[in-house]
Amino acid sequence: MAQALVLERKGELSLREIDVPDVLGPDDVRVAIHTVGICGSDVHYYTHGRIGHFIVDAPMVLGHEASGTVTEVGSRVTSLQVGDRVCMEPGIPDPTSRASKMGIYNVDPAVTFWATPPIHGCLTPSVVHPAAFTYRLPESVSFAEGAMVEPFAIGVQAAVKAALKPGDTCLVTGCGPIGLMTALAALASGAGTVFISDIAAPKLQIAGQYKGLVTLNAKEVRPRDAVSQQCGADWGVDVVFEASGFPGAYDDVFSCIRPGGTVVFVGMPVEKVPFDLVAAQAKEIRMETVFRYANVYERAIALISSGKVDLKPLISETFPFAEGIAAFERAASARPTDVKLQIKLPG
Amino acid sequence: MAQALVLERKGELSLREIDVPDVLGPDDVRVAIHTVGICGSDVHYYTHGRIGHFIVDAPMVLGHEASGTVTEVGSRVTSLQVGDRVCMEPGIPDPTSRASKMGIYNVDPAVTFWATPPIHGCLTPSVVHPAAFTYRLPESVSFAEGAMVEPFAIGVQAAVKAALKPGDTCLVTGCGPIGLMTALAALASGAGTVFISDIAAPKLQIAGQYKGLVTLNAKEVRPRDAVSQQCGADWGVDVVFEASGFPGAYDDVFSCIRPGGTVVFVGMPVEKVPFDLVAAQAKEIRMETVFRYANVYERAIALISSGKVDLKPLISETFPFAEGIAAFERAASARPTDVKLQIKLPG
Amino acid sequence: MAQALVLERKGELSLREIDVPDVLGPDDVRVAIHTVGICGSDVHYYTHGRIGHFIVDAPMVLGHEASGTVTEVGSRVTSLQVGDRVCMEPGIPDPTSRASKMGIYNVDPAVTFWATPPIHGCLTPSVVHPAAFTYRLPESVSFAEGAMVEPFAIGVQAAVKAALKPGDTCLVTGCGPIGLMTALAALASGAGTVFISDIAAPKLQIAGQYKGLVTLNAKEVRPRDAVSQQCGADWGVDVVFEASGFPGAYDDVFSCIRPGGTVVFVGMPVEKVPFDLVAAQAKEIRMETVFRYANVYERAIALISSGKVDLKPLISETFPFAEGIAAFERAASARPTDVKLQIKLPG
Amino acid sequence: MAQALVLERKGELSLREIDVPDVLGPDDVRVAIHTVGICGSDVHYYTHGRIGHFIVDAPMVLGHEASGTVTEVGSRVTSLQVGDRVCMEPGIPDPTSRASKMGIYNVDPAVTFWATPPIHGCLTPSVVHPAAFTYRLPESVSFAEGAMVEPFAIGVQAAVKAALKPGDTCLVTGCGPIGLMTALAALASGAGTVFISDIAAPKLQIAGQYKGLVTLNAKEVRPRDAVSQQCGADWGVDVVFEASGFPGAYDDVFSCIRPGGTVVFVGMPVEKVPFDLVAAQAKEIRMETVFRYANVYERAIALISSGKVDLKPLISETFPFAEGIAAFERAASARPTDVKLQIKLPG
Repeated sequence: MAQALVLERKGELSLREIDVPDVLGPDDVRVAIHTVGICGSDVHYYTHGRIGHFIVDAPMVLGHEASGTVTEVGSRVTSLQVGDRVCMEPGIPDPTSRASKMGIYNVDPAVTFWATPPIHGCLTPSVVHPAAFTYRLPESVSFAEGAMVEPFAIGVQAAVKAALKPGDTCLVTGCGPIGLMTALAALASGAGTVFISDIAAPKLQIAGQYKGLVTLNAKEVRPRDAVSQQCGADWGVDVVFEASGFPGAYDDVFSCIRPGGTVVFVGMPVEKVPFDLVAAQAKEIRMETVFRYANVYERAIALISSGKVDLKPLISETFPFAEGIAAFERAASARPTDVKLQIKLPG
Repeated sequence: MAQALVLERKGELSLREIDVPDVLGPDDVRVAIHTVGICGSDVHYYTHGRIGHFIVDAPMVLGHEASGTVTEVGSRVTSLQVGDRVCMEPGIPDPTSRASKMGIYNVDPAVTFWATPPIHGCLTPSVVHPAAFTYRLPESVSFAEGAMVEPFAIGVQAAVKAALKPGDTCLVTGCGPIGLMTALAALASGAGTVFISDIAAPKLQIAGQYKGLVTLNAKEVRPRDAVSQQCGADWGVDVVFEASGFPGAYDDVFSCIRPGGTVVFVGMPVEKVPFDLVAAQAKEIRMETVFRYANVYERAIALISSGKVDLKPLISETFPFAEGIAAFERAASARPTDVKLQIKLPG
Repeated sequence: MAQALVLERKGELSLREIDVPDVLGPDDVRVAIHTVGICGSDVHYYTHGRIGHFIVDAPMVLGHEASGTVTEVGSRVTSLQVGDRVCMEPGIPDPTSRASKMGIYNVDPAVTFWATPPIHGCLTPSVVHPAAFTYRLPESVSFAEGAMVEPFAIGVQAAVKAALKPGDTCLVTGCGPIGLMTALAALASGAGTVFISDIAAPKLQIAGQYKGLVTLNAKEVRPRDAVSQQCGADWGVDVVFEASGFPGAYDDVFSCIRPGGTVVFVGMPVEKVPFDLVAAQAKEIRMETVFRYANVYERAIALISSGKVDLKPLISETFPFAEGIAAFERAASARPTDVKLQIKLPG
Repeated sequence: MAQALVLERKGELSLREIDVPDVLGPDDVRVAIHTVGICGSDVHYYTHGRIGHFIVDAPMVLGHEASGTVTEVGSRVTSLQVGDRVCMEPGIPDPTSRASKMGIYNVDPAVTFWATPPIHGCLTPSVVHPAAFTYRLPESVSFAEGAMVEPFAIGVQAAVKAALKPGDTCLVTGCGPIGLMTALAALASGAGTVFISDIAAPKLQIAGQYKGLVTLNAKEVRPRDAVSQQCGADWGVDVVFEASGFPGAYDDVFSCIRPGGTVVFVGMPVEKVPFDLVAAQAKEIRMETVFRYANVYERAIALISSGKVDLKPLISETFPFAEGIAAFERAASARPTDVKLQIKLPG
């Protein structure tokens, strides 16, 4: 039995004792959780009780963006030691599945993932996790930043999928947390100019703090016009990262990209989107999709620790564990100036 | 002035004298045309007068799938000689454009293309063409096969874009001429099993002649069921080539593909298609598009001449030039057993 | 205790009882071995007692190219059933290592491999093996062919590394078993013409049986001359597979390749080789290396079962297990007409 | 006739009038040269009279690293205007050659290159150049930096060839001008840590000014030891850039790289190098080579203008054109603290 932030059912949270898996296997580590970030999906389970076909039909501990300290290691673990400061990949695949053998363990059909029903998340003082998906944080990376590795990893996965080349001009459509993470990952991965578009001025203001991000308020300027000015009328950006999931964005994607360019679909639309496939074909566009991440945690940590990416300005507020429910209520209120809210565990 | 098969306007063809460009530049060759295949786009211009924003508003010579014999070479040409049997890439880019310098000259915004308004095609006894886009045919490849290189090149481009790996299992949706070309190109490019689906039994019968092509009548069997039997319930084919352009096919695409697989969109839908992007994302699918071809003519010729691909069974009937209008009427009638109709020039 | 073909020490084989690992773990299968091929490395351990820093300093069961039948499955195994005809990947990695997570489990520093000291091989009637590295054979693939999957997988790995494109012209230097496997894999993977060179006429004669392989006797013709005739004086083959390990071959490699081409180093030279790096740089060549294989067994099986590759002509002779020592003596005699010798286990 | 810095023959320079090509074709621009950097190859022609099979057997204008201002444009040029500040790619390929059509115009066998015999270079007040290989400099990039684009482009080409992924750990062997350019390009292209090794302390001191470059004095520390400390004993760096051409470096390359890593050979050794190919194979290393560059000038300019790379500290001294011979003498003296010497043209 452990204290945890539990989603009892749609719309109802409690901070209470609950039974969570506790057995330390030979390849596992036990981690005292220090900080957990609140993700849009946590909030969505809270407010809607489901995401697609994942339905909350039993109490579930929330949270999957975590950092902490190793307190115990399994008998076969050699890569980590008690006392190591770490962050964790929340997905656990079958390591010998067909997908895992190919290096794409994120799309292993058997993968389980923290705080995706029916799997408990990590908003609880201690978790057991496979050592293979637990990563040491360098001293230069704080616990707060360590808990940002998970969302930043999505941006890094997007940059990897784009196969960015040095000096690429990019456009990110959507300036929510994932759009920001993607834009910063692109910038750190060699992009020259990174445009980022949205219709919410406060979000763009946050992006505008970063040298190299060029904000576009889509209410005031057509993205294609801004792109033409930079790239020429019959050319476009090398890479578009679609990070809004907004149906209206998909036409911009194909009008702004250059012939032979690449689009990475990061944002997840709620429904089917009307796709101008011929527009993509006429420029022979490559399109990549992102589902979580694989083999990028160490990359994300390297970019943060080297100072190439500064995620600290994106941590809008930190709540103590005892006020975890208030933190979720704040997150559910969706203030445009909030990028990331975090919860600090006690002890 | 030269005799040519001219589309006067939508619905009206004539065989008559017309002025066509005739000046042989230093890097050009003159080619006596031997055989020209009729493409769906030729027919579409005839029946509809336009394709997308390309509109026939002046008489235009049709035809872009051609083979012939070099009769004259420009002063700087060293790669070809008079008497060489050749086929031609119908698109001419600006060779120093940004796209061309990158090797993707097919998406050069400045490209011109035979029988795409306002550019004349090749259904005329003699044409002038850049030597750089004129390819010698080995003796083992007939003129009739030479005129098949153009449509086959689209299939080869699709196989190149797929980055097929040896033994890949593939699905081609759509068994029209382009679906067949793509399926045969995939097979010759290392695919193990290639499923091909359609709802027209006569088309599937033609595909069924080829060892390695497994036909699926989508009226009788759900493609996903056939795929599951071969690949397992939670896996799928490595590559889907969408070659129908039919809106209903796009859901099959994402249900049949394996996690981490690749989709190549070859067929061009008439309108925007409803796209289940989340289904693509959940498997982290890569999507490639095909626009004509670049740098594959020699590949296509090599596959034909080596005997890896036999396109001869796909030539349904050959008409003399004098009966060219009848050939187009036959093509417009869209017999399901017709794959490719060709026109043989006189002399 | 089980009967096995044991290398006691350099130069001394025996057929005797020996203790081999026998415990069936939950993710393992037990396989009754049917056929085992003799590999050059098996022979090298027999004749030299070592390969590089792998030294035979205790009795070791030989053999790593095997097919057989599943006789028992571990408690968690769902992919295989008793009675399944199978072949096995002889290398067992740590599935959660850094390399394995990236999909390159073949270069996991912790990998163990059959018949590589101090690990026992499979020339014994029954082995225990992880289900994840055991592959079902379709009915159309015989046990003899199943035991050829291992060496053929090296050729397929080479073709995958080459990233062969349809119609590529290739050169394989060296017509030993691995050269042949590589040439056949290239051919099945979309190559147009595949040249294969050697100085031993009997070996080339075997290659010459295959349509699509063009043999070059390097005693009679310079490979560069043959390449020039096919590809032009200032061009070359798209891909060279170096499969001889012979120091003299490395100059041919760079003279025969085209600008921007790819070299795959499959053969392992005994010592450092003098490398004309500037010749490689002047053509901006990409060079790939092959170490065993990863994620290609199913590809290899698909190519064999589809009929794209016929390995049966390469099985030179089959010995009963009781004559296993004689089989090794024959292998050690290195008849140029022997490609693959196999041993059939009893029962 | 124009004033120029002419290499009369090995060891003899003069500043004198010479006939250089002067005709402005329809696709050309005329450029008033502003600044020219001195490259090691210029110096090598001066001191040795040859590089490989390129032999100076007639007077030749030196210089190929140039920036300037457009003074006249050909009749078909639309991409540039009189007054544009520009830099130029010194290699001119046949734009319709086989290699150029594939996008690898740098390895077109017909390419000509400034100051590579018998082609004149650009150390003269005005040159005629194809517009397609002339690139506009943004206002934020000075002429001095513009003349650094050429050597930096080699580093960018190396980074492109490496297909760097975000957060990669890299090692550059050799801290000469090209090593520095490569290290800075890698850093700007997403690398996390970049080690750079040399035996000359003054060179390392220059590298050490850059945040993110970790210098290794190979006289004091074995590169493998430094790598082990960062990456672990059985792992290594993701990418090695060999930029020394020094025979002794090639063993470090393979000991420092991780399994599945990539080596890019940038430095050109004087003779064949002894290559431990088996060491490369055992880790299944990919090896890329660099020959000048293609399609990276705009990338290089974007990285400089965005502030991601600061090349100004590498410009050691600037000489007036009238002292051009003294500049070459200084360059030939090879001071370890000199990275790049530049010559400023008059007017």
